[in-house]
Amino acid sequence: MKFKIRSFKIGAGKPIVFIHKSDAKNLSIHVGNRVELSKNRKKIIAVVDLVGSYFEPGEVGVSREIIKKLNLKSGDEIEISLTPSPQSTGLIQKKLSCTPYTKKELNTIIKDIVNNALTEAEIAYFISGVYHCGMSDNEIINLTEAIYNNGEKIKWSHKNVADKHSIGGIPGNRTTPIIVSICAAAGVIIPKTSSRAITSAAGTADSVESIARVDLSISEMKRVVRKTNACLAWGGSLGLAPADDKLIQVERLINLDPEPQLIASILAKKLAAGSKFVLLDIPYGKNAKVSRKKAEHLKNKFKKLAKHFNLKIEVILTKGDEPIGNGIGPSLEIIDVIKVLKRENPPKDLERKSLKMASIILEMVGKAKKGEGMKKAQEILNSGKAYKKFEEIILAQSGEIGYIRKAKYSHNVTSLRSGKITAIDNKLVSHAARLSGCPTDKASGVYIYKHIGERIGKSEVIATIYSESKQKLREAVEFFIEFKPIKIG
Amino acid sequence: MKFKIRSFKIGAGKPIVFIHKSDAKNLSIHVGNRVELSKNRKKIIAVVDLVGSYFEPGEVGVSREIIKKLNLKSGDEIEISLTPSPQSTGLIQKKLSCTPYTKKELNTIIKDIVNNALTEAEIAYFISGVYHCGMSDNEIINLTEAIYNNGEKIKWSHKNVADKHSIGGIPGNRTTPIIVSICAAAGVIIPKTSSRAITSAAGTADSVESIARVDLSISEMKRVVRKTNACLAWGGSLGLAPADDKLIQVERLINLDPEPQLIASILAKKLAAGSKFVLLDIPYGKNAKVSRKKAEHLKNKFKKLAKHFNLKIEVILTKGDEPIGNGIGPSLEIIDVIKVLKRENPPKDLERKSLKMASIILEMVGKAKKGEGMKKAQEILNSGKAYKKFEEIILAQSGEIGYIRKAKYSHNVTSLRSGKITAIDNKLVSHAARLSGCPTDKASGVYIYKHIGERIGKSEVIATIYSESKQKLREAVEFFIEFKPIKIG
Repeated sequence: MKFKIRSFKIGAGKPIVFIHKSDAKNLSIHVGNRVELSKNRKKIIAVVDLVGSYFEPGEVGVSREIIKKLNLKSGDEIEISLTPSPQSTGLIQKKLSCTPYTKKELNTIIKDIVNNALTEAEIAYFISGVYHCGMSDNEIINLTEAIYNNGEKIKWSHKNVADKHSIGGIPGNRTTPIIVSICAAAGVIIPKTSSRAITSAAGTADSVESIARVDLSISEMKRVVRKTNACLAWGGSLGLAPADDKLIQVERLINLDPEPQLIASILAKKLAAGSKFVLLDIPYGKNAKVSRKKAEHLKNKFKKLAKHFNLKIEVILTKGDEPIGNGIGPSLEIIDVIKVLKRENPPKDLERKSLKMASIILEMVGKAKKGEGMKKAQEILNSGKAYKKFEEIILAQSGEIGYIRKAKYSHNVTSLRSGKITAIDNKLVSHAARLSGCPTDKASGVYIYKHIGERIGKSEVIATIYSESKQKLREAVEFFIEFKPIKIG
Repeated sequence: MKFKIRSFKIGAGKPIVFIHKSDAKNLSIHVGNRVELSKNRKKIIAVVDLVGSYFEPGEVGVSREIIKKLNLKSGDEIEISLTPSPQSTGLIQKKLSCTPYTKKELNTIIKDIVNNALTEAEIAYFISGVYHCGMSDNEIINLTEAIYNNGEKIKWSHKNVADKHSIGGIPGNRTTPIIVSICAAAGVIIPKTSSRAITSAAGTADSVESIARVDLSISEMKRVVRKTNACLAWGGSLGLAPADDKLIQVERLINLDPEPQLIASILAKKLAAGSKFVLLDIPYGKNAKVSRKKAEHLKNKFKKLAKHFNLKIEVILTKGDEPIGNGIGPSLEIIDVIKVLKRENPPKDLERKSLKMASIILEMVGKAKKGEGMKKAQEILNSGKAYKKFEEIILAQSGEIGYIRKAKYSHNVTSLRSGKITAIDNKLVSHAARLSGCPTDKASGVYIYKHIGERIGKSEVIATIYSESKQKLREAVEFFIEFKPIKIG
């Protein structure tokens, strides 16, 4: 049936179509049903909502996501038809009972996720099954291929395209912009795509976004890479592994990150981005996402599965006992990055880790001889070449490194006693930062002044909490004071 | 912050508030955030959507659910404030790792579900954990209490309030209206509350709704019971165990029905409805929800846990190898019920099962001597007293037993060969009925003409499929022809 579009600028975060009650009755469509909207040969699946006023029968309102996908304007005609129930619905229950998936089944599920044919609750069931029952290597390979095949793929004419990835979990661990700048300055092609925060306060994409655009199209990304050897883009807007972004959205709700999906998602994204060399950082420790033992296990899994895809991979295990750098939150972390690159009072731990990882990549792709990567990386950083490269990349992504705005509200938390810092709990620090508004409010977050082993005096400021809302600030400060993420011995 | 209500009649199926982009920015509120809306002392938690047109900053649009709960009209002022992240979010992950819940934790989760503080995806994670890890008796008791305590409770002045329940899974198994009519005619107080379909094509509430109102308030329900000894109400609108309705909504997405939640939900609803005597029907068999063994296990669980709550319970295990009655779908099933009550060509299986269950209740509450329940039940049915009682109940619920409308479209499926019916697959029949539009389209569904053991001729009509939409009809017929739910030997 044909409908006329009425402008209805709702940013629902997902495709929703508002249908007049009387039309819905005629078509036997109900709230929550999914329908297919099409114009010319473009199609999108949307969830139905009903309206009783605002427009006449025969007219529909659509959310921004639909306007964008179908390229609509007010008055346009679109076709609406019922979609059959997605096949995946029957498949999702299977994994909850720990039955393995076939290649075809995984492809069906991932395709339905990408086509918006599954609700968030259905995706949550799928994730629960994977979390609880795990997957065989074969299933992970099939999941990787399903994620990789149901999305865009980038091809490069260069042979030695490099990439890095950290499995995350360490607040403030913003090494990427530093590593990318050093490597690109050395002539490495490193078109970095990053994700947004999953369980942390900020992902690299969230951080870089506080000073530049990260939602590049593939052609924009290629232009940036042609100009600068590198980019700092958000993977989501490139359409690489789009299933992954939806999975992460749903995982984020309860901070879940099941291993098979974690592995498949990283491999699929690297493959889709056209990378040939990948350096993977797995922080471990009591306070990190994984234990030393689990990190070793993951390292072996990655090495084994990467071979299947002909991907050269190096994996380093790093200590993840405390935050890296001082800022935790999108803008606060980019401020730390700039300090390292500009050689202005840089957080030493962030600098050390970035140099180490950059040196490995330089050696992997042959830009430095075995054992000489570190020297070369240091040279590039100290000479200012890395900072210059960073400026170029940010500029090419329509950004600039100017004044970075502080949050509207802030609160200094002071130490109740003097002593030595004995522990900093990553999860509690991240949680405080999230309560303050991270990752959506860029300038919010937690700034810590000391690391493990350093001394602090009584009444000295131990952390500053930033927020854009008084209520969020209060919540974060109360949490910080009650749970004391920084232990003094 | 105060906002002015603009009429915005959207039936979103859940509380959604549409906030102007500029207000959202000021308050640092994002799409998908949850906020608390309050007026006078009424409160509701709603999900945020953003709009860029239609109203001015300072105005908000609200979905029907909010209008109803806060009793709003256009121009009213409401207060909107950020809600702290629900506590449950941290608790949900616990069960996914099979850690048992404490009484307090279960109460927190159920309270958050009732207060709409959890998204459907978060609820799906909770259900997955319960499905996968199960619960101890103690956890089930605590879950029952949490569901029971976070909702309305009905008190009766009568001592011997009776009730029945079937765990479902058998298409067409619409015994309730018949049992209730027989028992009420015998003087039993039987204020029956029913649910809507979970995994089947119709629940008793869906069926009765095709001829009467089922969304009664507690005072309306009490009035109906005072007048007729009984009622046939939908549990959801009474506010009894409201958590249960939300859980079922999310379970329905992938046809999941985890045992601990099934037990807790039934017990909580019976307790909240003020029942003292409960007859529970557990259909078993290859084709039913549970095996004979699982049915025995459930029987013991129910007997044990009911004791804890001082509930007198009888449990019968019934064979669930095929549909009961001929109609499968809300209206089609109520037509079968009326045939039994009116003694006009009644489906014999439906009649037998209803009489058996009614007789047990009559004996349980002392309206018939041990061993004489069946005679009494038959007498009431044959005399027309049960039909008269049914008419009274339907009338008291603003309904009438007139002409029941058939669906717009229908299709006769004929047998390709002659022979004897050897099996009827409940799940496939239900699925075909759901594809045809059940349970939302009342008149849709499947009508079968034969049961196991009966003969059918070549080209004889084996089933008629009814639907309100051509596409749904086609889907259901194609499915029926491809999967052949009725086997001929």
